Amino acid sequence: MGEALEGLKRNIMCGELRESHIGTKFTVMGWVQRKRNLGGLLFIDLRDRTGILQVVFGEAINNEAFIKADNVKPEFCIAVTGELVHRESVNPNMPTGMVELKGESIKILSESETPPIYIKEDLDAAENIRLKYRYLDLRRPDMQNIFMIRHKTAKAIRDFLDDNGFLEVETPMLTKSTPEGARDYLVPSRNYPGMFYALPQSPQLFKQLLMVSGFDRYFQIVKCFRDEDLRANRQPEFTQVDIELSFVEQDDVIELNEKLVSHVFKSVLNKEIKTPFKRMTYKDAMDKYGSDKPDLRFGMEIKNISSDVLNCGFKVFTDAINNGGSVRAITVKSGASMGRKDIDRLGEFVKTYKAKGLAWIACKEEEIKSPIAKFLTEAEMNNIIKSSEAEVGDLILIVADKNSVVLQSLGALRLEIAKKQEILKGNDEFNFVWITEFPLLEYDEEEGRYFAAHHPFTAPMDEDISYLESEPGRVRAKAYDMVLNGEELGGGSIRIHDTALQEKMFSVLGFSNESAWERFGFLLEAFKFGPPPHGGLAFGFDRMIMFLAGTDNIKDVIAFPKNQNAFCYLTDAPNIVDEKQLNELGISINVKNKK
Amino acid sequence: MGEALEGLKRNIMCGELRESHIGTKFTVMGWVQRKRNLGGLLFIDLRDRTGILQVVFGEAINNEAFIKADNVKPEFCIAVTGELVHRESVNPNMPTGMVELKGESIKILSESETPPIYIKEDLDAAENIRLKYRYLDLRRPDMQNIFMIRHKTAKAIRDFLDDNGFLEVETPMLTKSTPEGARDYLVPSRNYPGMFYALPQSPQLFKQLLMVSGFDRYFQIVKCFRDEDLRANRQPEFTQVDIELSFVEQDDVIELNEKLVSHVFKSVLNKEIKTPFKRMTYKDAMDKYGSDKPDLRFGMEIKNISSDVLNCGFKVFTDAINNGGSVRAITVKSGASMGRKDIDRLGEFVKTYKAKGLAWIACKEEEIKSPIAKFLTEAEMNNIIKSSEAEVGDLILIVADKNSVVLQSLGALRLEIAKKQEILKGNDEFNFVWITEFPLLEYDEEEGRYFAAHHPFTAPMDEDISYLESEPGRVRAKAYDMVLNGEELGGGSIRIHDTALQEKMFSVLGFSNESAWERFGFLLEAFKFGPPPHGGLAFGFDRMIMFLAGTDNIKDVIAFPKNQNAFCYLTDAPNIVDEKQLNELGISINVKNKK
Repeated sequence: MGEALEGLKRNIMCGELRESHIGTKFTVMGWVQRKRNLGGLLFIDLRDRTGILQVVFGEAINNEAFIKADNVKPEFCIAVTGELVHRESVNPNMPTGMVELKGESIKILSESETPPIYIKEDLDAAENIRLKYRYLDLRRPDMQNIFMIRHKTAKAIRDFLDDNGFLEVETPMLTKSTPEGARDYLVPSRNYPGMFYALPQSPQLFKQLLMVSGFDRYFQIVKCFRDEDLRANRQPEFTQVDIELSFVEQDDVIELNEKLVSHVFKSVLNKEIKTPFKRMTYKDAMDKYGSDKPDLRFGMEIKNISSDVLNCGFKVFTDAINNGGSVRAITVKSGASMGRKDIDRLGEFVKTYKAKGLAWIACKEEEIKSPIAKFLTEAEMNNIIKSSEAEVGDLILIVADKNSVVLQSLGALRLEIAKKQEILKGNDEFNFVWITEFPLLEYDEEEGRYFAAHHPFTAPMDEDISYLESEPGRVRAKAYDMVLNGEELGGGSIRIHDTALQEKMFSVLGFSNESAWERFGFLLEAFKFGPPPHGGLAFGFDRMIMFLAGTDNIKDVIAFPKNQNAFCYLTDAPNIVDEKQLNELGISINVKNKK
Repeated sequence: MGEALEGLKRNIMCGELRESHIGTKFTVMGWVQRKRNLGGLLFIDLRDRTGILQVVFGEAINNEAFIKADNVKPEFCIAVTGELVHRESVNPNMPTGMVELKGESIKILSESETPPIYIKEDLDAAENIRLKYRYLDLRRPDMQNIFMIRHKTAKAIRDFLDDNGFLEVETPMLTKSTPEGARDYLVPSRNYPGMFYALPQSPQLFKQLLMVSGFDRYFQIVKCFRDEDLRANRQPEFTQVDIELSFVEQDDVIELNEKLVSHVFKSVLNKEIKTPFKRMTYKDAMDKYGSDKPDLRFGMEIKNISSDVLNCGFKVFTDAINNGGSVRAITVKSGASMGRKDIDRLGEFVKTYKAKGLAWIACKEEEIKSPIAKFLTEAEMNNIIKSSEAEVGDLILIVADKNSVVLQSLGALRLEIAKKQEILKGNDEFNFVWITEFPLLEYDEEEGRYFAAHHPFTAPMDEDISYLESEPGRVRAKAYDMVLNGEELGGGSIRIHDTALQEKMFSVLGFSNESAWERFGFLLEAFKFGPPPHGGLAFGFDRMIMFLAGTDNIKDVIAFPKNQNAFCYLTDAPNIVDEKQLNELGISINVKNKK
């Protein structure tokens, strides 16, 4: 059993001690990083949240403490009191490297078994072990740093929004299932057996109601839930920075959120982010980058070369064009020397995006080399090279198909090549862009109906409203995504605030009037009482932290994450519950326990 | 359909306009509070979050706007542009009462049906209507003010804790059911059909793990859940300010939280709260006030008069004492004139607390009047009066029984009399006290075992540890509650941080070693790796807001509350879900839908 503090008070943190503190007596508390004997002395590296401090014990300093300190092992929790002195062998690589604390007395607050994972930076241990012993994994300085960043970021967001007149209002966690969107987590009700609450996928409806209530400017940093099969970088519960404003249009929301993000990056990373951000329409983003979240840190834009090959002898190209598709290309700088095998591999890569093949033109110094050269006139070849903006030494990669396949495969290929060529290695740029003018609706071939691309409350662009019933696919939305380095950081829209338009929207989505009212009746009802024009945005807070902390694993930024099956190795959740609990809820299990 | 903003920007809020703004043109936006015609002019009271502004329309100001404005009705949402001028008939009762805006142009942003509740302060409407139309209820200025206070309070707490080195860390919402405490809300798992997550009743275990992780100082403003039958002022989901610190003892936690609360009251109400707060042991609080959350804004303390009546002729008194109980009294100042019926009513009142009766002594000017006078000698009577500190004109009320009944009934009676006599009317004091030295364990007669009075991780007081197995009921805890005006504002404890002591505690609670490990194994495991001494506290955030906002209804401080059956009138949650959803979860409903 460990010793009690009995009034002993820590008066400084390990990582804070500097030469200016020399000559003063301090009490520090923390964990033993390592212990070593050297020349009759005992050195302990003591670690707390702020860093590591060397503590030295010796017969001449205090013999009792020296003997006691000899018993400690790594990860023992101890308190040490003594004078701060100059360090004999200074270590310029650590902030406290000029000083050490004389171990005049020591308390062993608790002992430790040998930990199953090392407490060090850049740990390379199996993920399930790290998650099972998460409390030890979180002792690692790089993990602690991430959660300091997470705290600072939330603080910076709240400070900024508070300064700008926003109120944080909490919305319910136990709410109504709204089956449009992802799968809900359900919570059985005891008072109404057979009925269920749902955990919110977002506070969308509530934040709109708060606008109807006249709260004017709302935000919340809030947990949201989606019971989906987890892809990489998805967690069943995640955190959203949810924002909504009244009496605004798209530009107001955009301007505010640029300032917010710029404030956050400045506060947390001391990084200047220039505003306003670039803006790009959805159409341009798709045309140039084959993606609605383009990574603009490098070029390699997609070029439409359809007009260059309109009448060429290569049937694959002309068929694609004649069937309403296109022929497009990207140019890999200095790629002409790429080997045949590597090019073949890129061909396999685009097939995963449903492209039937990848044509290529290598603009070598001595010659133009291409398997399709024989189908092209010299003029056609020159036009392609010109349109592709290829120079000597470059490689042109071409896909011909229907537009969606061409753009998606070339967009993905562009990223794949950037990765392979390490184009972004050492690049510490934060390249922001707003994508605007998204399609309001997306047609689902299988279900034979339109779905809301964003959500059913997104307002159509004024100039497109007239097409809502005649040509729904043509209607653009007052929707906008903030994209950073090829990832969506946040997205939002101006909302419909008119019952008639909202009802028309539901009808386009194939809801009967009855079913729309059943699901969203309280919002439609609210819109009868003077709703203000309003709009907003939600940021993926976890993803924002990933950027700020420089990690690409979402589990690193969540204190107690779950695995791909939404299982928690630490607590063994989910788990079985008492039959009595289920009886109270009026539910029973009708499958064999699969675990 | 309403008009669009089309670039029109609001440049000031209604409630902000003052005489200093006169002569400038402004655009304001908000809701029509009322409209009236007077002398050929049209006056509209326009309301936004900040207050009300008078807008005047007239033929001479702008005829087009005048005609349009005549169409608006209460709760229409409008935008008005015009010059700010002096108001003809000033209204000194409103902050904007010296000015009015000339209605030079108006946009009707949306129309409103007649709202089912009035948008005014101190609304007296049925609660279910208020909850169904919550978005209208929340338009009322007094409700908006509460949520501004709630926002400000959260901000003040976060600012203070950030300044004091605390990190806000989010803990999981989908976690493990721990069946000690209240009933959990369960969430069925789709990946592991037949298994369940639980929504957290508090982040207790996780915050202790964060201390093991070396985060040192943690806090979180977080939603917690309890599926209990709702008494007044309980909600199924509520918000907690959760705090935990390492390397501290009880006094450190107490001191920090006094500073926190004092900072909050200063920031939100500009009210000075003196620190340190009073402290009182649990035993003293029970002895003097019959409650572990005594209201110290008034006296009327309970006096033990057992020794005065030890040998008296009143068998009820002597029997109580001889059976190990006691005879105690409270003195009602100027209560001697209370009528017989009123005293009888108080007698009925204490019976609800299991007291068998209420004896009384009225110290009238002319005589001592009491039904028990005949059983008492003059000396005994005089001693009782002296012990009760009664003066001429006072009324002494006496209960004799076993101690728990005597204290509970007199404690409740004390509050009841204060309420009846309106002792606290107009009292705006915030009277804080820490209650300390709580019993660690409480014996449950029915189950025949001890339960943790606080929770099973609370540390016993050092001087009582030796009684843990021999006399568990005697062991006091390192636990403390912050009590304000007779309500528990927060509570916490120093935790056990030693596996051996924690296991002993579980054994006293009647857990087998196996079942303790099954439930809390991950915490016991964590304690093997150098846990620091730690402790903390949690505040009921909703209750804190009730104090700051001066309301005694918890529904007033929660934006979208549920009713006593945990039902939401606004969204109709809980509700039925698709059979498909239940199949995916592997559960079925085995009761008839009762709704």
